[in-house]
Amino acid sequence: WRLQSRAAAAGPDLSGIYPPIATPFTAREEVDAEKLEENLQKYAEVPFKGLVVQGSNGEYPYLTAAERVEVVRTVRRSLPPGRLLMAGSGCESTRATVQLTEKMASAGADAALVVTPSFYKGKMDSRALIRHFTKVADSSPVPVVLYSVPANTGLDLPLEAVVELSQHPNIRGLKDSGGDITRIGLIVHKTKMEDFQVLAGSAGFLMAAYCVGAVGGVCALANVLGRELCELERLCRSGRWDEARVLQQRLIEPNAAVTRKLGVPALKQAMEWFGFHGGACRSPLQPLTEAETQQLRRDFSSNGWL
Amino acid sequence: WRLQSRAAAAGPDLSGIYPPIATPFTAREEVDAEKLEENLQKYAEVPFKGLVVQGSNGEYPYLTAAERVEVVRTVRRSLPPGRLLMAGSGCESTRATVQLTEKMASAGADAALVVTPSFYKGKMDSRALIRHFTKVADSSPVPVVLYSVPANTGLDLPLEAVVELSQHPNIRGLKDSGGDITRIGLIVHKTKMEDFQVLAGSAGFLMAAYCVGAVGGVCALANVLGRELCELERLCRSGRWDEARVLQQRLIEPNAAVTRKLGVPALKQAMEWFGFHGGACRSPLQPLTEAETQQLRRDFSSNGWL
Amino acid sequence: WRLQSRAAAAGPDLSGIYPPIATPFTAREEVDAEKLEENLQKYAEVPFKGLVVQGSNGEYPYLTAAERVEVVRTVRRSLPPGRLLMAGSGCESTRATVQLTEKMASAGADAALVVTPSFYKGKMDSRALIRHFTKVADSSPVPVVLYSVPANTGLDLPLEAVVELSQHPNIRGLKDSGGDITRIGLIVHKTKMEDFQVLAGSAGFLMAAYCVGAVGGVCALANVLGRELCELERLCRSGRWDEARVLQQRLIEPNAAVTRKLGVPALKQAMEWFGFHGGACRSPLQPLTEAETQQLRRDFSSNGWL
Amino acid sequence: WRLQSRAAAAGPDLSGIYPPIATPFTAREEVDAEKLEENLQKYAEVPFKGLVVQGSNGEYPYLTAAERVEVVRTVRRSLPPGRLLMAGSGCESTRATVQLTEKMASAGADAALVVTPSFYKGKMDSRALIRHFTKVADSSPVPVVLYSVPANTGLDLPLEAVVELSQHPNIRGLKDSGGDITRIGLIVHKTKMEDFQVLAGSAGFLMAAYCVGAVGGVCALANVLGRELCELERLCRSGRWDEARVLQQRLIEPNAAVTRKLGVPALKQAMEWFGFHGGACRSPLQPLTEAETQQLRRDFSSNGWL
Repeated sequence: WRLQSRAAAAGPDLSGIYPPIATPFTAREEVDAEKLEENLQKYAEVPFKGLVVQGSNGEYPYLTAAERVEVVRTVRRSLPPGRLLMAGSGCESTRATVQLTEKMASAGADAALVVTPSFYKGKMDSRALIRHFTKVADSSPVPVVLYSVPANTGLDLPLEAVVELSQHPNIRGLKDSGGDITRIGLIVHKTKMEDFQVLAGSAGFLMAAYCVGAVGGVCALANVLGRELCELERLCRSGRWDEARVLQQRLIEPNAAVTRKLGVPALKQAMEWFGFHGGACRSPLQPLTEAETQQLRRDFSSNGWL
Repeated sequence: WRLQSRAAAAGPDLSGIYPPIATPFTAREEVDAEKLEENLQKYAEVPFKGLVVQGSNGEYPYLTAAERVEVVRTVRRSLPPGRLLMAGSGCESTRATVQLTEKMASAGADAALVVTPSFYKGKMDSRALIRHFTKVADSSPVPVVLYSVPANTGLDLPLEAVVELSQHPNIRGLKDSGGDITRIGLIVHKTKMEDFQVLAGSAGFLMAAYCVGAVGGVCALANVLGRELCELERLCRSGRWDEARVLQQRLIEPNAAVTRKLGVPALKQAMEWFGFHGGACRSPLQPLTEAETQQLRRDFSSNGWL
Repeated sequence: WRLQSRAAAAGPDLSGIYPPIATPFTAREEVDAEKLEENLQKYAEVPFKGLVVQGSNGEYPYLTAAERVEVVRTVRRSLPPGRLLMAGSGCESTRATVQLTEKMASAGADAALVVTPSFYKGKMDSRALIRHFTKVADSSPVPVVLYSVPANTGLDLPLEAVVELSQHPNIRGLKDSGGDITRIGLIVHKTKMEDFQVLAGSAGFLMAAYCVGAVGGVCALANVLGRELCELERLCRSGRWDEARVLQQRLIEPNAAVTRKLGVPALKQAMEWFGFHGGACRSPLQPLTEAETQQLRRDFSSNGWL
Repeated sequence: WRLQSRAAAAGPDLSGIYPPIATPFTAREEVDAEKLEENLQKYAEVPFKGLVVQGSNGEYPYLTAAERVEVVRTVRRSLPPGRLLMAGSGCESTRATVQLTEKMASAGADAALVVTPSFYKGKMDSRALIRHFTKVADSSPVPVVLYSVPANTGLDLPLEAVVELSQHPNIRGLKDSGGDITRIGLIVHKTKMEDFQVLAGSAGFLMAAYCVGAVGGVCALANVLGRELCELERLCRSGRWDEARVLQQRLIEPNAAVTRKLGVPALKQAMEWFGFHGGACRSPLQPLTEAETQQLRRDFSSNGWL
């Protein structure tokens, strides 16, 4: 069951499931490398394709560039062979993104996940974004994966920009967290002649994304229910859609709870319940209120996960 | 391959493809019953489950209540046995909706498609909408199908309202035109114990909607490419997802052109190209500009339909 | 203190304050002409420029065309000489708007307030809206006032359409309920050579609108605090800005409560508190909850009005 | 003519006009300190209250923390006595904002302008924002001015957060770039007992903001038409509203062109036309296209500025 044609020598196959790993902090809000490593050891037992480090769920906007690189280095050391390390290296300016991408590669990243710059959103049209990603990809030592996450950036990477950028030899895919399945299907369609793969950016539409031609997912929920998401992947890829549907449906509410509804603090709380180190977020992200914690628990328990 | 469990005696099975038929007008903007009937004769040869009359593509907001009923009467006379006639009967006020629903039933509708009232959108919360649809369903002689079309109404029927309304014995389904596939999957999940079916409201996400548990689609594009959409339905229902994907992908751009991008005037223009009567819209809808017509043609031809 | 230049013979001067009157209903949701007339008698004692009948606060989308005309007739009979009757006559289709505008004029309207059609919002560009309003104005026996109310319609009448339409001899003004004061200032600037006046569509930005060149306001809150809004008008027009500011600031929260926050049900509740007949709304608008009623009371009392 | 009551000893009076200065770059996109200083010399001749350094128009998201501080230091050296230096020190994390605010104070800032963190916008509710700004203000050596710029951040600092934060002894004001004049009036009203001042964040609604009680403006356009904005301030403060209105109206289109419509590249282009150093932006901001440059020129010339 082939999802997208790929040239043999074209670099890493991105297909599979990735947790965009959370960053544990100490009580003083410092990066807690020890707890991170304990999480990584547990993730090593799950059949992930790899890990995304410094995605939105890693609180990357709250880390310094040095911290961002150091976390990648830590992950690289722990990562079993064959696992792909995709490192978020997007910054607002092109020059900072170029520099951080190089550092991420030096720190051991196999690919760079580059979010759309978005502060001047009114000016971030296709022209500007194509030039930005082209410059980054031109100089990046590792393949680049585009990253569109409108819930955080207020900006959807325009389809025509994706199509043009898909032709760049060093741009290999897109993580699309917007969840517009029509758009995802059309992107797959219009990039099918390229060495370009689409990853669903959330567990809520993972099955539907497979259905229309995506090859995997970078899913916050994989920090918590990693095995289940890998099982969903297996069902989709082997064409067992009826079983997949049952599993997918049970994952929608827990996923919404740890992303759109309650965000990173909820993700970290749920991680604690499932045996991982989550802990607190950096400020200004606040701990869940008691009511939010109960809502979160309900969203897991009513679907049979707690 | 069963999509949703349904009690045997529970009224019409909604599953299948429906064109939300366009309303042809004369040069003086009067309803052209003759041309409408000629279209109906052609649609009779396509394996549709039925027709939707007075959906958004029927320009219902531009018709008087009397015209809306008369069109339904015309369609009823022409409709082959076994085809389901779903009539749009939504108005802004509950009382007008109740009255028009009764008239639609008298005129021969098998089911009523009831759009969310939306003018006072700030006040159309779950409480108000649940009462509205409950009153309408209580008094309706025919089953009611909920209709959420945020692109036109600026309002998405809240999920909790759908779930509660799904328990009403005379509410049988939802046409969801928003296209949020995560939401569609969750609605299927949370209504699976009810006699309730979900229809995709657009061809752009039809395959994905089948994938997550919808049972059919009400698709503007079915006015033009009806056979192809019925073929897509057949592929999805028989589990031939790889073939389905290829067909689905070729339908996204033509569908976007006749809906979101260029709207009803484009739908009617494309109908002309494919042997149906489309013609002009009622004002204030304007004919396509020359540039828009070329864009429309490109969206069909680049996907191999023209 | 002149706000906008106007030719002498050009029809009614629109400047001043208008309540967009609420429509009282009986317990069975029928129009209550008696209570309406009692309200009108009280409004006759307030120095309003006139009344708006069938604005958004009149629940016009819930009235039949016949009811809409009948209410105008009732108001005409009660209106003291010299007061201007502006009747909402907007419908979705151009033809229905043309017809209703003529009926409103026959029923005694001095001007027609014509809202933007909005169902097919994606197609309601300047071209379509200019043609719509031009056709309506061409055939209207009374002057036309444009009406832009994006909170309800999801559509802002584009500035370039306003500017072009301002040149039509039978289009005399704009009621702008969007509240974008930069836009209002620019509209005044770009229409200053025309016989065209701008009215603020809400009490919340009435003083600021006067400041940038508007000549009056159609304010839901005038149903409740009509004298106070006329006093605010007087202060603004006589350049007593410091006193105006103190009054304006006390009106913002009550105004928000009866419009954006709690809507027409709150407006009608507040009317009861201030000696007018408000009563219930037509369904699907629901009565306020107890918590909403308390919030409403707080928004009036904390500003010294209750 | 008093706008807001202020305790005598409470730190700097913020009232007046500030250009949020642009950052000139060399051809290699390095900060061009020389050109910056030449601009500063020209600004010294305009009766500004002070300068904002590292506002949105200063491309601060494209500068490193070190560059941001260095620019402040450069400005401090050139600033005539009595001029207020307000430095943008907002970052996504609370800790980074605390640190940068301290550095800005050390570099000579008289006040810190702190933008809302916004990446996790779904979680940036009043609770989170109040804690963030409180921590920053607690530790800041200089007074803090809140900064809400929804066009860039996708987030409006909630009114209740502003009201609560206005009570903090080290929080002295708000720069509001949203332009909702009703909100601005209400903020003035609800903070009038505090030592708190509101500045308009754009020239488009400067007069209206004065009208409802703001005390000044931080206006991109002041980089280009600084004298004219100071003249508008003078007219507003001396109650010459009719003259103010004429001037304000001519400034709306040029202002829109250099902000919302064409952004920082247009601001820098216009600066060149008016004798300042603008130059190119850092990538991914792109130079204007020829069509955009013509549009920009039209927006200035049609209002008599070119």
